[in-house]
Amino acid sequence: MRGVAILGSTGSIGTTALRVLERQRDRFRVAALTAYDNAQLLDEQAHRFAPEFVGIVGNGAASHPGWHVGETCLVDAARRDDVDIVLNAVVGAAGLQATLAALAAGKRVALANKETLVMGGRLVTDACRTGGGEIVPVDSEHSAILQCITGRPGVEVRRIIITASGGPFRGWSEEQLERATLEDALRHPTWRMGRKITVDCATLANKALEVIEAHFLFGLPYDRIEVVVHPQSVVHSMVEFVDGSVLAQLGAPSMELPVLYALTHPDRVPDSGVPRFDPVALSPLTFEPLSVERFPAFALGLAAGRRGGVAPAIFNAANEEAVALFLLGRIRFAQIGPAIRDALDSLSHLGGENRDAILAADAAARAHVKGRFGC
Amino acid sequence: MRGVAILGSTGSIGTTALRVLERQRDRFRVAALTAYDNAQLLDEQAHRFAPEFVGIVGNGAASHPGWHVGETCLVDAARRDDVDIVLNAVVGAAGLQATLAALAAGKRVALANKETLVMGGRLVTDACRTGGGEIVPVDSEHSAILQCITGRPGVEVRRIIITASGGPFRGWSEEQLERATLEDALRHPTWRMGRKITVDCATLANKALEVIEAHFLFGLPYDRIEVVVHPQSVVHSMVEFVDGSVLAQLGAPSMELPVLYALTHPDRVPDSGVPRFDPVALSPLTFEPLSVERFPAFALGLAAGRRGGVAPAIFNAANEEAVALFLLGRIRFAQIGPAIRDALDSLSHLGGENRDAILAADAAARAHVKGRFGC
Repeated sequence: MRGVAILGSTGSIGTTALRVLERQRDRFRVAALTAYDNAQLLDEQAHRFAPEFVGIVGNGAASHPGWHVGETCLVDAARRDDVDIVLNAVVGAAGLQATLAALAAGKRVALANKETLVMGGRLVTDACRTGGGEIVPVDSEHSAILQCITGRPGVEVRRIIITASGGPFRGWSEEQLERATLEDALRHPTWRMGRKITVDCATLANKALEVIEAHFLFGLPYDRIEVVVHPQSVVHSMVEFVDGSVLAQLGAPSMELPVLYALTHPDRVPDSGVPRFDPVALSPLTFEPLSVERFPAFALGLAAGRRGGVAPAIFNAANEEAVALFLLGRIRFAQIGPAIRDALDSLSHLGGENRDAILAADAAARAHVKGRFGC
Repeated sequence: MRGVAILGSTGSIGTTALRVLERQRDRFRVAALTAYDNAQLLDEQAHRFAPEFVGIVGNGAASHPGWHVGETCLVDAARRDDVDIVLNAVVGAAGLQATLAALAAGKRVALANKETLVMGGRLVTDACRTGGGEIVPVDSEHSAILQCITGRPGVEVRRIIITASGGPFRGWSEEQLERATLEDALRHPTWRMGRKITVDCATLANKALEVIEAHFLFGLPYDRIEVVVHPQSVVHSMVEFVDGSVLAQLGAPSMELPVLYALTHPDRVPDSGVPRFDPVALSPLTFEPLSVERFPAFALGLAAGRRGGVAPAIFNAANEEAVALFLLGRIRFAQIGPAIRDALDSLSHLGGENRDAILAADAAARAHVKGRFGC
């Protein structure tokens, strides 16, 4: 029986994980739950799963004397002795510290917080090596890649092909994108997710984050990571091996499988959370090239990844702030890309690779975007 | 450096294998070559690869004093000490003895001769267990399945989904099939292969043989083996695991990969024989149900597999003879299925499961089909 801590238990991934864990009670025990500020749902979850540790980052603990309060609860939950697996589903940059703490304590981190690897890829892979922990991705694309390569040495991989739904604006012209509304951006064609990641799918910033994440997770150079648009989101990603063979992982869009697989990898256990696969019902499967011109956030993210250092952290923070402003109605959709570019250009002098340098670059990028739009 | 014997070196799979082995000379050595009766090509191959053993089943050895002659050359080649891997690409039932001999000698059999497993599935899997040999499939579908499950225990597999191109008659009505010619049947939409297997693809008998082969290769009951029509032949087959996840192996149609993988499994080695995978160029991928009504050979084969005993051997032998008559222009395409049904019905009293029972059933089925058409 392995103990699981869920950081971000009231969000989209967190609630999915609890549905999975409800079915897998004979294999896993919920040892810790933390949420940002949804005290009511957290309380319900705590009653249902009776974890030893409950933490809340923001307010809402007043009527719950046993709860741990404040951002430190993430790290405290992550390194508990009764926790074997930390599912990090915290949104944004706040998840980095908890990931590092869990890896330093030799735990498995089931990583749904891709910002962790984007900001601190080198830090995290180093922590993994020295602490004896391991990172298993929860993103459907990276889970697919892991499933395709599990058991085989990295030297057998020629390239990976990450699929992208193309988002709600796949067929849109540049003029149409100029007039895109928040409602348009939140209408994702195949996946139901949180608002921030849904906008990232519309700008394709999410695919750039995924390429950077894959670079660190699988230790592949950027020229061996490709992206192809696959509107049906059935093929979750593909791996080409050195002999020319390609393996792909498929299924109807559902986050239950990636969450479950991150807990059980490399094993598989019987589970009913994924709809039965029916290739006839899912036919046809189509693939098209990614339009880099219409989605500047993708190319900016890729360039930041290739540049390395703190550039991915700047990209990630600028994107988070620009998306937050868009969600508040303060900027238009078409302004997100230019806001990221401006931050990357203006902060290109920032160097270093350690934790302080990354957090400084993160803060500078946030301040830059806010300042530009007078916040 | 591993020694390879190629049984059937002048056929479609045999010549493909020699192209692969030419590129992989630093890993594999051609130790033995045998052919049916194409002495001229065999002679060229023998000069190019300089194997220690050359055998020819039929005539043609007159001017080659060192060659081994007659059907025994297959078994002799298969159990040589300098042979580690036997690529069995003999067409039809003649390959069974060589497979059994190789397995008894503890060798790997790279099996392109699916009749081996269809006729003597139990015999072969028993020989594998007691002799310490192993069977690695060369069929693209079974190679795909093996690639998807390699490294994982069988208990994790929920079902396998074998893809079928649907053959040249996919969209044809029953009346059109009544008038189908030999030329029509040999016009396979995606694969270039030998004539017998090409006709088997047109009747879908080939898919029934593949289901029976998969049953024995992967130890799965028939109700966990499905067939779906996939006209593009890009997804070579799929595996659904107990957690609902599906892995698929993809690539442009080419036998070079299955041959290479059968030699290197579970490892993969760099090779240039497979065209670079381009999902955009191969798009769209479609899937449709198999039409059991219009292709009676498929249902007959499946029923024979489920019945077990010598029924698969009867199915296989009756099919071989009926196809041979069709290739000679002696019967029409639409008569192949009924000829098989008639043999299965008339010989349903035959029992036993040992080698003699199988060979007797094989002979009886051949005699029955020939007798029915006055040969």
